[in-house]
Amino acid sequence: MTTIQIEQTTQPKQKPAVEQLGFGKHFTDHMCIVDYTEGQGWHDARIIPYQPLTLDPSAMVFHYGQTVFEGMKAYKTAAGDITLFRPERNFARLNASNARLCIPAMDEALALQALKELVKLDESWIPTAENTSLYIRPFIIATEPYLGVSPSKNYQFIIIMSPVGSYYAEGINPVKILVEKQYVRAVAGGTGEAKTGGNYASSLKAQELASQQGYAQTLWLDGRENEYIEEVGSMNIFFKINGTVITPALNGSILPGITRDSMIQVLQHKGIPVEERRISITEIIEAHQNGTLEESFGTGTAAVISPIGELKFGDHQYVINNGQIGEVSQLLYDTLTGIQYGKIDDPFGWRVIV
Amino acid sequence: MTTIQIEQTTQPKQKPAVEQLGFGKHFTDHMCIVDYTEGQGWHDARIIPYQPLTLDPSAMVFHYGQTVFEGMKAYKTAAGDITLFRPERNFARLNASNARLCIPAMDEALALQALKELVKLDESWIPTAENTSLYIRPFIIATEPYLGVSPSKNYQFIIIMSPVGSYYAEGINPVKILVEKQYVRAVAGGTGEAKTGGNYASSLKAQELASQQGYAQTLWLDGRENEYIEEVGSMNIFFKINGTVITPALNGSILPGITRDSMIQVLQHKGIPVEERRISITEIIEAHQNGTLEESFGTGTAAVISPIGELKFGDHQYVINNGQIGEVSQLLYDTLTGIQYGKIDDPFGWRVIV
Repeated sequence: MTTIQIEQTTQPKQKPAVEQLGFGKHFTDHMCIVDYTEGQGWHDARIIPYQPLTLDPSAMVFHYGQTVFEGMKAYKTAAGDITLFRPERNFARLNASNARLCIPAMDEALALQALKELVKLDESWIPTAENTSLYIRPFIIATEPYLGVSPSKNYQFIIIMSPVGSYYAEGINPVKILVEKQYVRAVAGGTGEAKTGGNYASSLKAQELASQQGYAQTLWLDGRENEYIEEVGSMNIFFKINGTVITPALNGSILPGITRDSMIQVLQHKGIPVEERRISITEIIEAHQNGTLEESFGTGTAAVISPIGELKFGDHQYVINNGQIGEVSQLLYDTLTGIQYGKIDDPFGWRVIV
Repeated sequence: MTTIQIEQTTQPKQKPAVEQLGFGKHFTDHMCIVDYTEGQGWHDARIIPYQPLTLDPSAMVFHYGQTVFEGMKAYKTAAGDITLFRPERNFARLNASNARLCIPAMDEALALQALKELVKLDESWIPTAENTSLYIRPFIIATEPYLGVSPSKNYQFIIIMSPVGSYYAEGINPVKILVEKQYVRAVAGGTGEAKTGGNYASSLKAQELASQQGYAQTLWLDGRENEYIEEVGSMNIFFKINGTVITPALNGSILPGITRDSMIQVLQHKGIPVEERRISITEIIEAHQNGTLEESFGTGTAAVISPIGELKFGDHQYVINNGQIGEVSQLLYDTLTGIQYGKIDDPFGWRVIV
């Protein structure tokens, strides 16, 4: 155990009302910072009052996008426990992202320890209304004040936390998705499997164009052939065809989602056939045309499950399951949120009580 | 003309000695900032003492890479004038990058005006030794404190400046380049033609691996077929084959370099055949094998010309022009730097005197 210095705030903020939570708008009273200096490694882990960062305008993060992040949640159970969901997987993935971005590996045990101490200190910020939670954002930024294009010699690992409202306060409504044919999120040999800023920056334009046409998200095809399905918005994607659930196999340009992995394990545990493999948009359209495309949904930390009620591809619109959430989608949502909020047994050992 | 508020420093910094300049390590006494607020547009253009930026840790630039930048230089001529080189092209490209990254367009006239005022104020920072200059870095960062994946509602446009040493203090030595077969810098439909952080972040890993093998830079192939030549390091690339100079045509994933464009115009002006077209690595290897690959070089703001003395592709090494700088490379270098430093006539009207 590393000693993490804690400086408590003397000016706790007023907490927002539950109906004003939204997502990622309000932040708790404290944050965690760990510094990295070349030759010294990660050092000076500390929890301090939530405050602005002060960085030289030449800090590399502002110029060359050398940054990685994670997203996870803390939940308050009916019994009053604080739970995390597979947090060790987030910090393992953070280090996988670090390797791709030439950022030195973080001490995963230290990161988890710091997170637990931070969550305990700001426990009163975890909202308790149905399906609310505390969103956790660990991230690393390159801070060296230097304009050469090379890996930074200095970094900061930071954790901030935001109380978030229920994603489905008005019920789970399937969304309409536009299959993107021009813009590409990632390509083999790029950074698609890393959780790094550039992937999200590159997605904004297509998202904007989809919104203008009334679509909630874009469905991303591969960058080589514009044919194989990769992700939807910033989520992984699943389809149920003729009783079997399929999702694109991890190929280097798809984010290895922790919710994705959990869904696959839940499906296997329930005895529902599930396959990870390459899936073409042509196959999906054909399945729709022959009546075997039964369900589709995105998966991610924010929404858990986001059912897809319609795909638009070219000039054609394909309605899925009459625009309703499917049985398997609902089962997966109930199972995962049940485990996260401590409402049902956790046969997988995913719940971590803080 | 917009009124740009100027707050002069009361504590001018000591200037580094010319032999300690390097690149992008030292910064002048002042910087320029212009704010953008949704509904209000760009506002409050000001020049202030060089100082750290203070940003909320949830500011979007730290998470989603929504940032663009430019690179240019100011030169001191023997006559004592300050010159810029085609600066209007940099701000036009900044806006092209902005459009791809969903950042609101900058007022190009205001940006140029602010730059001129900043350069004049910090004129004493422009080094005067042979081939030294003042490197100028305009950039825009997304500053909204919000973790949703969407375009930011607030931005800052910032200009910082760094006195830089001669790139070729020890003479122009051609470099060894590794043709990259695994990692990809950009792909059609991605952000390759925009000057945004993510492109540079994604390049770091291949650059690191090339360095470990003793190569100065990576030569990037296209993301779809890994066959067509795109860029070298963070420069555009040219080849001279059998008397004709060729460079990859702008295809959406290649940065539209201003030095690249200038080289093409200089070649046309000198009556040297030049072509922009698709170029495969196979064509280059074949040209080497049949003895017609005469020269190769990268072009960019920092080095102007970086001659390539050797390509490594797979297990084979291909030495170009006996590892020496070629005649056309030298001619282009002398012409462009001659115009930039006011040593020769400028038939193109590229030089802008501040």
